[in-house]
Amino acid sequence: MLKTPKRYPDLADPQAHPRYTGISTFFRTGYTQDLAAVDIGIIGVPFDGGVTNRTGARHGPRAVRDQSSLLRRINGATGIIPFAQARVRDLGDAWIEEPYELEAALAEIAAFYHPVVAAGVTPLSVGGDHSISLPILRAVAATRPVGMIHIDAHCDTGDDYLGSRFHHGAPFRRAVEEGLLDPKRVIQIGIRGTVNAGDMWDFSRDSGMRVLAMDEFQDRGWAYAVAEARRIVGDGPTYLTYDIDSLDPVHAPGTGTPEAGGLNTIEALRLLRGLRGLNFIGGDLVEVAPSFDPGNLTAFNGASLLFEILCLLVEARFGPPTA
Amino acid sequence: MLKTPKRYPDLADPQAHPRYTGISTFFRTGYTQDLAAVDIGIIGVPFDGGVTNRTGARHGPRAVRDQSSLLRRINGATGIIPFAQARVRDLGDAWIEEPYELEAALAEIAAFYHPVVAAGVTPLSVGGDHSISLPILRAVAATRPVGMIHIDAHCDTGDDYLGSRFHHGAPFRRAVEEGLLDPKRVIQIGIRGTVNAGDMWDFSRDSGMRVLAMDEFQDRGWAYAVAEARRIVGDGPTYLTYDIDSLDPVHAPGTGTPEAGGLNTIEALRLLRGLRGLNFIGGDLVEVAPSFDPGNLTAFNGASLLFEILCLLVEARFGPPTA
Amino acid sequence: MLKTPKRYPDLADPQAHPRYTGISTFFRTGYTQDLAAVDIGIIGVPFDGGVTNRTGARHGPRAVRDQSSLLRRINGATGIIPFAQARVRDLGDAWIEEPYELEAALAEIAAFYHPVVAAGVTPLSVGGDHSISLPILRAVAATRPVGMIHIDAHCDTGDDYLGSRFHHGAPFRRAVEEGLLDPKRVIQIGIRGTVNAGDMWDFSRDSGMRVLAMDEFQDRGWAYAVAEARRIVGDGPTYLTYDIDSLDPVHAPGTGTPEAGGLNTIEALRLLRGLRGLNFIGGDLVEVAPSFDPGNLTAFNGASLLFEILCLLVEARFGPPTA
Amino acid sequence: MLKTPKRYPDLADPQAHPRYTGISTFFRTGYTQDLAAVDIGIIGVPFDGGVTNRTGARHGPRAVRDQSSLLRRINGATGIIPFAQARVRDLGDAWIEEPYELEAALAEIAAFYHPVVAAGVTPLSVGGDHSISLPILRAVAATRPVGMIHIDAHCDTGDDYLGSRFHHGAPFRRAVEEGLLDPKRVIQIGIRGTVNAGDMWDFSRDSGMRVLAMDEFQDRGWAYAVAEARRIVGDGPTYLTYDIDSLDPVHAPGTGTPEAGGLNTIEALRLLRGLRGLNFIGGDLVEVAPSFDPGNLTAFNGASLLFEILCLLVEARFGPPTA
Amino acid sequence: MLKTPKRYPDLADPQAHPRYTGISTFFRTGYTQDLAAVDIGIIGVPFDGGVTNRTGARHGPRAVRDQSSLLRRINGATGIIPFAQARVRDLGDAWIEEPYELEAALAEIAAFYHPVVAAGVTPLSVGGDHSISLPILRAVAATRPVGMIHIDAHCDTGDDYLGSRFHHGAPFRRAVEEGLLDPKRVIQIGIRGTVNAGDMWDFSRDSGMRVLAMDEFQDRGWAYAVAEARRIVGDGPTYLTYDIDSLDPVHAPGTGTPEAGGLNTIEALRLLRGLRGLNFIGGDLVEVAPSFDPGNLTAFNGASLLFEILCLLVEARFGPPTA
Amino acid sequence: MLKTPKRYPDLADPQAHPRYTGISTFFRTGYTQDLAAVDIGIIGVPFDGGVTNRTGARHGPRAVRDQSSLLRRINGATGIIPFAQARVRDLGDAWIEEPYELEAALAEIAAFYHPVVAAGVTPLSVGGDHSISLPILRAVAATRPVGMIHIDAHCDTGDDYLGSRFHHGAPFRRAVEEGLLDPKRVIQIGIRGTVNAGDMWDFSRDSGMRVLAMDEFQDRGWAYAVAEARRIVGDGPTYLTYDIDSLDPVHAPGTGTPEAGGLNTIEALRLLRGLRGLNFIGGDLVEVAPSFDPGNLTAFNGASLLFEILCLLVEARFGPPTA
Repeated sequence: MLKTPKRYPDLADPQAHPRYTGISTFFRTGYTQDLAAVDIGIIGVPFDGGVTNRTGARHGPRAVRDQSSLLRRINGATGIIPFAQARVRDLGDAWIEEPYELEAALAEIAAFYHPVVAAGVTPLSVGGDHSISLPILRAVAATRPVGMIHIDAHCDTGDDYLGSRFHHGAPFRRAVEEGLLDPKRVIQIGIRGTVNAGDMWDFSRDSGMRVLAMDEFQDRGWAYAVAEARRIVGDGPTYLTYDIDSLDPVHAPGTGTPEAGGLNTIEALRLLRGLRGLNFIGGDLVEVAPSFDPGNLTAFNGASLLFEILCLLVEARFGPPTA
Repeated sequence: MLKTPKRYPDLADPQAHPRYTGISTFFRTGYTQDLAAVDIGIIGVPFDGGVTNRTGARHGPRAVRDQSSLLRRINGATGIIPFAQARVRDLGDAWIEEPYELEAALAEIAAFYHPVVAAGVTPLSVGGDHSISLPILRAVAATRPVGMIHIDAHCDTGDDYLGSRFHHGAPFRRAVEEGLLDPKRVIQIGIRGTVNAGDMWDFSRDSGMRVLAMDEFQDRGWAYAVAEARRIVGDGPTYLTYDIDSLDPVHAPGTGTPEAGGLNTIEALRLLRGLRGLNFIGGDLVEVAPSFDPGNLTAFNGASLLFEILCLLVEARFGPPTA
Repeated sequence: MLKTPKRYPDLADPQAHPRYTGISTFFRTGYTQDLAAVDIGIIGVPFDGGVTNRTGARHGPRAVRDQSSLLRRINGATGIIPFAQARVRDLGDAWIEEPYELEAALAEIAAFYHPVVAAGVTPLSVGGDHSISLPILRAVAATRPVGMIHIDAHCDTGDDYLGSRFHHGAPFRRAVEEGLLDPKRVIQIGIRGTVNAGDMWDFSRDSGMRVLAMDEFQDRGWAYAVAEARRIVGDGPTYLTYDIDSLDPVHAPGTGTPEAGGLNTIEALRLLRGLRGLNFIGGDLVEVAPSFDPGNLTAFNGASLLFEILCLLVEARFGPPTA
Repeated sequence: MLKTPKRYPDLADPQAHPRYTGISTFFRTGYTQDLAAVDIGIIGVPFDGGVTNRTGARHGPRAVRDQSSLLRRINGATGIIPFAQARVRDLGDAWIEEPYELEAALAEIAAFYHPVVAAGVTPLSVGGDHSISLPILRAVAATRPVGMIHIDAHCDTGDDYLGSRFHHGAPFRRAVEEGLLDPKRVIQIGIRGTVNAGDMWDFSRDSGMRVLAMDEFQDRGWAYAVAEARRIVGDGPTYLTYDIDSLDPVHAPGTGTPEAGGLNTIEALRLLRGLRGLNFIGGDLVEVAPSFDPGNLTAFNGASLLFEILCLLVEARFGPPTA
Repeated sequence: MLKTPKRYPDLADPQAHPRYTGISTFFRTGYTQDLAAVDIGIIGVPFDGGVTNRTGARHGPRAVRDQSSLLRRINGATGIIPFAQARVRDLGDAWIEEPYELEAALAEIAAFYHPVVAAGVTPLSVGGDHSISLPILRAVAATRPVGMIHIDAHCDTGDDYLGSRFHHGAPFRRAVEEGLLDPKRVIQIGIRGTVNAGDMWDFSRDSGMRVLAMDEFQDRGWAYAVAEARRIVGDGPTYLTYDIDSLDPVHAPGTGTPEAGGLNTIEALRLLRGLRGLNFIGGDLVEVAPSFDPGNLTAFNGASLLFEILCLLVEARFGPPTA
Repeated sequence: MLKTPKRYPDLADPQAHPRYTGISTFFRTGYTQDLAAVDIGIIGVPFDGGVTNRTGARHGPRAVRDQSSLLRRINGATGIIPFAQARVRDLGDAWIEEPYELEAALAEIAAFYHPVVAAGVTPLSVGGDHSISLPILRAVAATRPVGMIHIDAHCDTGDDYLGSRFHHGAPFRRAVEEGLLDPKRVIQIGIRGTVNAGDMWDFSRDSGMRVLAMDEFQDRGWAYAVAEARRIVGDGPTYLTYDIDSLDPVHAPGTGTPEAGGLNTIEALRLLRGLRGLNFIGGDLVEVAPSFDPGNLTAFNGASLLFEILCLLVEARFGPPTA
């Protein structure tokens, strides 16, 4: 420490400093590349080479890091203190050396995550566009198919489009084909909006995924969605992927493919909190595109959701907090 | 076609191109002035000479055109493909030659719509301020009074103000007086906010309109509003007018006379979808004012609602889609 | 009057002019410093020296004044005409001469309010950060403890932080300690978000305040919160303090310490309207920070809530409007 | 005074308070309608019914009032203290009762200014669009033609367009025709941009005005423009009209008809300062359109130029400051 | 024509309509795909797959089309009426079918331009990032090397970076290698900023290009740059490529790789006007990235420069206007 | 390294990664608290408790860090590679424990800098408001008065205001009084704007400082200012303080006390580059207030100037680069 605080001599932790100070890491945690010192590693994936319309999610990790400084240490709703229960660290970015080739870029991402998983670190990722979830799954689901809770406006189980099968509207079709996902243990929540083809998301239903569209969500409420999600994924290893465009565009204007009429932030927070105790092996937050985000509200809401996902990952690994 | 697509040789349709490409027309439909080739004509009315406070809705048509490119071809909630069921075209703008005189300007708008209606084209208009609905009604209701579903924060049945009886707070009082509307078949949904005079909207109730204020909407829900609307307008010819300020200012900041505490976008979408099968003879979306719309969210939400109205008009004319 | 209006010769009142005209005072009321001519005095308190994170609420009064011009004269939901029932005036700002010392600044604010209260004027204040409520209470509760309805994302009953016990997260702990508040007659509504310490808000519960957290609010609804508030404060003298960050950040991005997942504007409006008839002796709206408010939506929503609070104060003093 | 300042007991003047406090009047001067107490009256003219493209200048006066609070009391470059040398007051707005008829609206404006001029008050106006200068000239030049220094991107000497001869591109042709301007004593500085017709501004040259186009300004510099202006207007009574779109769009984005490649702010400030000692009888600043002004830079630069014009008017009337 | 204008019956031309009306094409020209009817074709190239940092230029064509509606028909500085002297049309976008592979995408662009050039149409292109200039040169310089005036903050003569030789920092090195450019007839104006490697732009000087860095430009002025450009390119066929980041970031914030301290818009306009009479065979404006452009100033300035380039192309083909 | 780059195996340096990746430190340098490993330490000072009007500079360090990632490694104009010539590191923030007391806060800042200076590290600081320069001078000038080149719109040599002598308009008067500055070796460049009192900046001239006001700067040019600065400070130890409000508000809207008509960025860059070889012992960049900076242009221009100051400090310590 350059400085020995007068009032807080024991608080070298940057989280004890005023929130507007210091270098922006995720939740003002320490940055490290030493995997042995980490339980939960938060990783930026600044890649948006898979988008089909508005680009810019490559700047998502920095924006979420910056806005995450508005969060404090303890989850006020659940009492969880993720930073006390686990060694949570910012692992920096899985940057891409060859971003101009989509498939090669995805391979680079997978290569980044393999040692992370091998070291026993639970990865929590911040995109980047949704195409990044495929290579992350290649690492975290390398040994067996996993279940998945997928909150999104789109099923992202499309096929070839604009000359590629690996764009951000297709990762989970590929993941099923590659044996990374068990579609019977996948639920997709928040689906809505216009489509290019009537059978665009048929793969989801045909493969056995549970699709909980937005109208059903609104009719039945967040608690029902929680129950459905728990029913579908059960006790098995489960990945959690959160596309910020599941939120209503009012709550998340800063994203590439907004769809009118989505979740509001309270619903999303409570949906996530309802998933406590599930066997999560990793998670991600994707599609925050800061250049479409005047006021940074999308990044702020994203950081708030990321904090809830972090708490889920901590509890999945270390159990609930002891009173 | 200048270009023969390699992968999509059959797709000369601009809707098949990536959404960020091409000239901005409504929903990337073809632009034409040949009325014989059109079933549903989408028309911009860039006029805001009737506003009483913040101006700028003249720029609404371009903004909605631009944001409408984010929409795709098929209504994901209902399966309707408006562009497959009907010849939907962008007819350009009903521009005003003499915008400095309010009444003359309204007469010009009516003159634009008469041949459209005579040609059997169903008009779907994008304002402009709400004063434009009066001259449009003069064309579409020229032969008999029609019913109307009117979604708005204001009744717009005011009287003389600032030296005119034709400003954007008065069109529907004039329309009743001119015999264009049957007030018994008019419902106004979403009304709220402060008023200048206690009897400002008395004309609505006195003439027999059903006023469903925002508090009642919130208490009873969108499905109740749907039922009321269907009950009021019945089977007769009905016009649909959507003022974007019916939405909460959070969902539609870009408008001239916002009122706190309005509909959210999901409610609006479902309200509109609930009106399927009614006998709609035309519709409009008004009061999008882009210069108050950082981030273009109002225009995007407006385009999303416009798509639902388009689907209603297509179904009114050609029936539900055949599976 | 410089000008004798042709059409409205009797309307010297600036509220009769088009809303985009004239000098910005609160709700376009007259500005005065003559306390004898005032029943309800609206006062700006441009002070943000108590913030713990993002600053800028010193510019709140001007922004709320400006946006308040979008409001009209009559409450459309309740029929109340505050300006007809009471002499409502803009008293200007309680500006601070020595803003660099937090405690001295708070003493200056109290000194401003003492003559206001002594003159029998009911003060309605616009901050500024929440630290200003303490000196206002020192004036309005000088003779006995009062009850309080407190709508906020935070309990603001913290203790020493960053070297002071008077920052904007602590005013109500100080107010209890100083005998200004009867904690048994205090309810705090909308509480949520992350915290720095698990016992951060323990003072609220330990002292007997009713804490109605956001999750409970969402589960039970605004009408329940109304009932609870009425039950807690009863008939005694009651202060109303409204922190704009109680709203969801989507509805109030322009504030210093946003917390995801809050009230929406409709809920807030109805909650306030539900409090009619209580014995309010003053109120405030705080934490509007315009430099974080692209589009001015926070100031507009704040002005809309301020209007409801104004109506409550008028009714508390002069009773309901006579039909 | 509600408050007796401790440190500044003699400073009831709002200009002595911190600049972020208090109600927004022009330069924080007192607001009055008592013409007998005023030497220089600053008047808002919130009218934009004469624009030919982007509207919104009706909100200009409020925005300039607000930004003018960033200015202090003394001209640092010249030492002039306008508020000490003259009774400078904010006279409020010349609001329009019948804004929907362009010619009637202009007549209303003239009617507002006649008593101002009759009372011997020098008017300094803030638009509004440039059409307002015609009715102001009808008042200030009622008894004889005057000279004019006109800084603008456009000559505004056009003719009939969109059904009117009184839009904001034509006021000075009308003013010559009405005998209000002596074209030989008129200079137009900063002219540039595309035109609709090759002879669009021919009236300027044909009537004898000196047109100093932007390229000539850039080649010769601001000091040359000063010399030319002084040569043209001489000692006679002169009006000064400043269109904010004379500035480069970078310096004044918030305006309706921007033209690339204009003056920068330093050049404009020095040009104005170079006009000291001329016989100015009034002045205006027009075309600030706040809804196109993210960041309020146009209003701020406008307020800074307005301050220089104010100093010119004070010196024209009371002579240079005495050391 | 749907509408027969009353006042302007002969004006079917959309350029005769008020500028805020109608569908956005470049300069409100007609849209066509019939190359035989076109002399100068303006083409959007919505591709940004070659950027090395901030992306989003794919949205450039729409933004420039929209802002170009603020321009009128005649160049006020030179009297040129491009639309009268030549058949100027909007050819729509050269959209990419396979955007995920950089080299394939560039090949698609070249394939689009070959028939344009073969039809004798002079192409004026709007990017997109600067990588698009290479495939355009492959078409316009297919038969012989051409000279080039290149206005930019960067030489764009880099080499392999991030796994590709075809990113937006390298097109002109490739163009020399492919024999499309005669480096002795190339001048690069406005070069500045930080670099990754000391020899990053050595290819420019080594190959014989004239590099006129920003400091030299500022020291010598725009007229000197004009003289140098004319000296270098001489009478031979010449391409004009304008990177918007040559402008100072204040004048062009909406771009991916801004560099502090660039040209201002006046300098750029006059530099371009100074190039009249050269033998231009095509031109482009690139790197407008609207999502970084609050207020749309970059697109507006870009449209203003594009108009000057259009005038240059018209004069190159049809000679100066006849008085 | 978590990742071993394939193409760049030797580049562990974050500066070799794509600029949009990684955690935001100043110029993407390594973060350290080990003073022994540092030659030039860049330090954020997130304190704005000394402002007299618009606040928010506490967020300046993060914004400048973020925008500094747009810069590359080498000064293109001078060839200097600061990171190769010196060990440049980000030392994090000098955060304040007791921000509510201005004088105590300044003492904390001084306490942070004393060990930095003692360790032989040259400090380059990013504010924060200008009050921070006083405590920094207390550290760097602890042993003898130093000279200073001060670029600013204001002299900042004021006295007691709003109850304090330590606000951001007074640091250099205090510094002279404390013997930290030799006023004969101080030059202030860019001074302009309105003032509260005619003698507001008299201390500057009376104490012997050279005040080079903006008008003189514009008349004589940047090279003259360079010559004057070199003449005044001579060979002695010199501090460089750069207030971003010296720039024209167009170039630096994001600041608390803008003054119309300032330096443009090119002038500022060249002015700084002209100071090469002087005996600089430290420097700072202050008054970047991000919440007033839509588009982040102020932070970007600030980062660009900071890079030049960094180069000056490196050269002052290690001499010019060896070819």
